[in-house]
Amino acid sequence: MHFPAVDAFRGGKGLIRVVGHRGARGILPENSMIGFEFAMNTGAALLEFDVVMTADRVPVITHNTSLHAPTFRGSDGQFIKGEEPKVASLTWAEVQAFDIGRIDGATDYGKRFPDQAQLDGIRVPRLQELLDCIMRDAFSHAHLMLELKSDPDFAEDADYRSEMVSTVVSMLRAGGLENRVLLHSFDWNLLAECQRQAPDIAASFLTQLPENEDEVGEESAKSISPNFQGKSAQIPDMVHAAGGRLWCPYVYDVTEAAVARAKHLDLGIAVWTVNEPADIGRMIDLQVDAIVTDYPGRVQRQLADCGIRWLG
Amino acid sequence: MHFPAVDAFRGGKGLIRVVGHRGARGILPENSMIGFEFAMNTGAALLEFDVVMTADRVPVITHNTSLHAPTFRGSDGQFIKGEEPKVASLTWAEVQAFDIGRIDGATDYGKRFPDQAQLDGIRVPRLQELLDCIMRDAFSHAHLMLELKSDPDFAEDADYRSEMVSTVVSMLRAGGLENRVLLHSFDWNLLAECQRQAPDIAASFLTQLPENEDEVGEESAKSISPNFQGKSAQIPDMVHAAGGRLWCPYVYDVTEAAVARAKHLDLGIAVWTVNEPADIGRMIDLQVDAIVTDYPGRVQRQLADCGIRWLG
Repeated sequence: MHFPAVDAFRGGKGLIRVVGHRGARGILPENSMIGFEFAMNTGAALLEFDVVMTADRVPVITHNTSLHAPTFRGSDGQFIKGEEPKVASLTWAEVQAFDIGRIDGATDYGKRFPDQAQLDGIRVPRLQELLDCIMRDAFSHAHLMLELKSDPDFAEDADYRSEMVSTVVSMLRAGGLENRVLLHSFDWNLLAECQRQAPDIAASFLTQLPENEDEVGEESAKSISPNFQGKSAQIPDMVHAAGGRLWCPYVYDVTEAAVARAKHLDLGIAVWTVNEPADIGRMIDLQVDAIVTDYPGRVQRQLADCGIRWLG
Repeated sequence: MHFPAVDAFRGGKGLIRVVGHRGARGILPENSMIGFEFAMNTGAALLEFDVVMTADRVPVITHNTSLHAPTFRGSDGQFIKGEEPKVASLTWAEVQAFDIGRIDGATDYGKRFPDQAQLDGIRVPRLQELLDCIMRDAFSHAHLMLELKSDPDFAEDADYRSEMVSTVVSMLRAGGLENRVLLHSFDWNLLAECQRQAPDIAASFLTQLPENEDEVGEESAKSISPNFQGKSAQIPDMVHAAGGRLWCPYVYDVTEAAVARAKHLDLGIAVWTVNEPADIGRMIDLQVDAIVTDYPGRVQRQLADCGIRWLG
């Protein structure tokens, strides 16, 4: 089967794609409409972002399955203290009461993004808002890497998982966006459910080796992904066997041998999250297809310096 | 005389203003409409930028009095090679043929901005475009620090200088923008001409000590500014004596004593160009009124971490 959405993320001779991670997290609040529009307006029309369902079954765009304290402020203007509420326990209206425009510089997570603009009045977007946005003429070249977050609380709840997939898939179908969106996850069982329900929509296979540390302040995906312990060299074959056309490894897991094997299998390779100049350089040398980054401008600068383009 | 435009650049208790330098040069091409709109949309509604006149007397927004080779590409897509054409020798149509969306990473100037998005099809804006933009409701809080570039070739041409000032002033009057724009220059004689023609529009006095080096790849202002050799401690008094209400010193010239003297004289202090975290911290400690920066988000992050706000 041919997937135009996968083609949008494929590089080629003198071409490496730039994917805006959660919009452009290094520059603007993550997973915000202002961040998505900025990325698309500045040459990163490929977006990676995260989807979770609220208690009233509204797919919303936020990274963690709980409200992430370092980026969520309540109506008192203060960052969340104590336990982080689960998104699945809140209605959409309740989620919307929080402001995600700033990052708490006192946290280890906040310290990672020293250049991020600090805004007020920024709300968690619904998935539908972003889909509506890319249906506008101005963003007709945009493609989405839509990560379905798998909540470990519902790992055994087949009905819940099926409903999550069907809710998202029906929104994509209603917008005629089947060829512009990848269904992307660390949870390969959830991807299998996607392929069952929507074999015409491309799946995108995230991986992270258990031996590499999680990024600071991020919710770990290790409990819901396949266990790759000792299987590092086999991952491209595992993606291929699962019907994947696009492999999305963690930047510090990527080896020359794995890239060669993936290319042999004709898998696209989109690497996350590549922010440091040395890592960007290594990905350019390895000729991956796409670089997922919090700093799209930085990657563009480095590609331009090497005479490599990022637009098709 | 009371100048509301100066008030817009004044800080106060727990308040330091953020001014987007040439828009947000660290993030987007300098002196571009996309850069100005980005800055204004992300909490930096105070903009600093540069105005030069074309041969057909169109005020355009660009920093140097010649087309700056590291940021100007011709219709062949290549950065300018050899001698840089003077803006004053080109018509507006000729200037518009160049693309300013990228920066040449092979130059020392280009190396200073490793995160700048690289765009195509970006043109030098006319001053009128930016004035029209801030007359829109969405940008009704914007204020401009409009730097009149003084071309040494015309330093003795009183008619040329008078025409430059009158052209700009009449555009501001036509838009009713007298209280939203500062006329800003290193050339204090040109500021005197501004004050003669438009005593109701605030002047803003740029200074740079001759003993400090120019920023890499920048056109020097030293030949057209007063000579401050040996007068470092007197500059605030000189600004005050010249009728100034706002003093704009170079970041590496600023001393605690000078700041204290300026405050004693009730001068506003807007410091340029403050990009490095240590320098931002020093300006916060000195409680200057405004920080002019290529990285508005970075300054916001650092202000927020100190519990200081930047919006009125």
